[in-house]
Amino acid sequence: MRPSALRQLLKATARPGMISFAGGLPDAELFSLERVQAAVGAVLSRVGGRALQYGETEGVAELRDWIAAHYSRGALHLTRENVLVTTGAQQALDLAGRVLLDAGDRVVVENPTYMAALLAWQPLGANFLPVGVDAGGMKVEELPALLAQRPKMIYVMPTFQNPTGVTLTRKRRVELLQCGAPVFEDNPYEELRYEGERLPSLLELDSGARVFQAGTFSKTLMPGLRIGWVIGPPPLIERMGRAKQAMDLHTSTFNQHLALELLQTGYMEEFIPRLRQVYRERRDAMLDGLAKYFPPGSTWTKPEGGMFIFVTLPEGMAAAKYLPLALERDVAFVPGEEFHLQGAGRNTMRLNFTKMPVAEIKTGVQRLAEVLAGA
Amino acid sequence: MRPSALRQLLKATARPGMISFAGGLPDAELFSLERVQAAVGAVLSRVGGRALQYGETEGVAELRDWIAAHYSRGALHLTRENVLVTTGAQQALDLAGRVLLDAGDRVVVENPTYMAALLAWQPLGANFLPVGVDAGGMKVEELPALLAQRPKMIYVMPTFQNPTGVTLTRKRRVELLQCGAPVFEDNPYEELRYEGERLPSLLELDSGARVFQAGTFSKTLMPGLRIGWVIGPPPLIERMGRAKQAMDLHTSTFNQHLALELLQTGYMEEFIPRLRQVYRERRDAMLDGLAKYFPPGSTWTKPEGGMFIFVTLPEGMAAAKYLPLALERDVAFVPGEEFHLQGAGRNTMRLNFTKMPVAEIKTGVQRLAEVLAGA
Repeated sequence: MRPSALRQLLKATARPGMISFAGGLPDAELFSLERVQAAVGAVLSRVGGRALQYGETEGVAELRDWIAAHYSRGALHLTRENVLVTTGAQQALDLAGRVLLDAGDRVVVENPTYMAALLAWQPLGANFLPVGVDAGGMKVEELPALLAQRPKMIYVMPTFQNPTGVTLTRKRRVELLQCGAPVFEDNPYEELRYEGERLPSLLELDSGARVFQAGTFSKTLMPGLRIGWVIGPPPLIERMGRAKQAMDLHTSTFNQHLALELLQTGYMEEFIPRLRQVYRERRDAMLDGLAKYFPPGSTWTKPEGGMFIFVTLPEGMAAAKYLPLALERDVAFVPGEEFHLQGAGRNTMRLNFTKMPVAEIKTGVQRLAEVLAGA
Repeated sequence: MRPSALRQLLKATARPGMISFAGGLPDAELFSLERVQAAVGAVLSRVGGRALQYGETEGVAELRDWIAAHYSRGALHLTRENVLVTTGAQQALDLAGRVLLDAGDRVVVENPTYMAALLAWQPLGANFLPVGVDAGGMKVEELPALLAQRPKMIYVMPTFQNPTGVTLTRKRRVELLQCGAPVFEDNPYEELRYEGERLPSLLELDSGARVFQAGTFSKTLMPGLRIGWVIGPPPLIERMGRAKQAMDLHTSTFNQHLALELLQTGYMEEFIPRLRQVYRERRDAMLDGLAKYFPPGSTWTKPEGGMFIFVTLPEGMAAAKYLPLALERDVAFVPGEEFHLQGAGRNTMRLNFTKMPVAEIKTGVQRLAEVLAGA
């Protein structure tokens, strides 16, 4: 297991005054502490000590019901048997690996992709089959050539992908499902759409129980609760539940009840529109700054939602080379090669636009451009 | 991975009216909800949104400091670099397996032992070398014969062991460390001592950095927070931290701050004496009931602390056979063979005495005796 460069970087970015585009963090200033305090009071008086007791591995039943109802759309009817509550969506990645992968198994991944998925599956001896990404998401047309290698799983983040921010087109979604391979749809950002039309998830489009989907409250409520989930066919959920039992027995009952209380009292209806508005302004500020200041020949994605813009610098400009200088000037980003397989992406960088206010985004992008210009 | 009989059983025991001696649960009636509510208020006003934000994989620094200080005794000086916060002590078991064990590796375990340790390590391909347990804990004198098989780890719960409740003698503690093999000391129950003199932990006795220790707030604060830890040499803690990152990124920041607040405002000083008093009375009630009602030829452990009494029925009485009848009469226990390797322990049962009030313990033990007597 290699030490994660990102982890070290994120520690450095915690220092005061740092303008961090590095982490995938929401802005903690937007959490409603009053609502949390009230929700805790409601949980303690309604549920009592049971909210602080051991709980079932699969999760609090009412929370599983809420998730099942929320993600039932069109022809997709989910029940709690389709839902396993996890300790953040990261645990869903870990569970997928432990339940589905054996040493030597192949997994199709986007290139670039979410690095923590690779970190979860590398120790299991998984081999990765990278597929390129463009403005329309995973280049699904490259898939058929890889299917001969019999991948155990296709891992894809179709909506506002991490790190690129791009969204898989509807046409490619349909084509992806025609491959017939099991698909892990990682779906943390769906609620953070700032423009454009919502596309059906792979889970909704799937008619053969080949898709399982991971989700999280980390981007809509608060990451500190560590509540995610997997939605999938009951036999898979059952297997994952058994594996989870050996991993952490169950996810915090207290936090599950707290999340449920926030959901049932309209937290998402009230706060998601606010998140969307604030994050849209920040995305726009970053896009403006990039257009204004970044070196000629640079390109970047224009995400309709999520948390990231992905920048491609002119060929030959290695983003990692500029990181120490950027940190010296109190601006942080993640070099894009961290998200790539096969040493690709050296001239790319991932910029998060949700954590910092607009003024800092403007300043940070300008400073970063100066660092890139060698000024 | 086999389905856990215990897990199914624990679900059944949730039904109202059940007198459950099955789980290893504290009594939720003893949690102070007022203190939790107040602690949440203090955390939200002092720490703010940061308490709900992503956090460091290793844990909240101040909580690591508290744990390090609390377990520094005598010659043992710990700092936060010795501490990794985990999502319950179960995650410590999982981490130990993932970081230290490869397929085919051997692990010395007590027989009987905590079954969830086996559940965590079996999927990794570990082989178990069982060592018997008597009233003085693991029969350490059997160890030398096993060392020729080069075990990667000795897993032991020296204090108020689960499932037997017995405690490893001081002499055996010293002898165990002379084996020279890495020792995983599982230490969830230490604070729950109802009589007798505290013995130094293996961690305290170790002079060669060969011991790492798992602990938890599940027995002293509340299990629903899911906060445990590993204490060990910094290089091991560092490796485990990297592994944990891929498992769940980090343990709930909110719950870590909440636990810290409870600890800093004297929750343990105030409530542990109360827990000890209540649980001691319950243990005594169960011991009385066993002496009064259980079939001649039965024996049981007399634990000085912890949560369990382990009963050995007369030879030929298979405890599992009586479970359906017991459940019909609203009494639950765990058949002791669940904790044994090699099909041993068929005439044993684990009885938890911390969850139910004294009156229910009396009734439950009497009913159970009637079931065993075929009445």
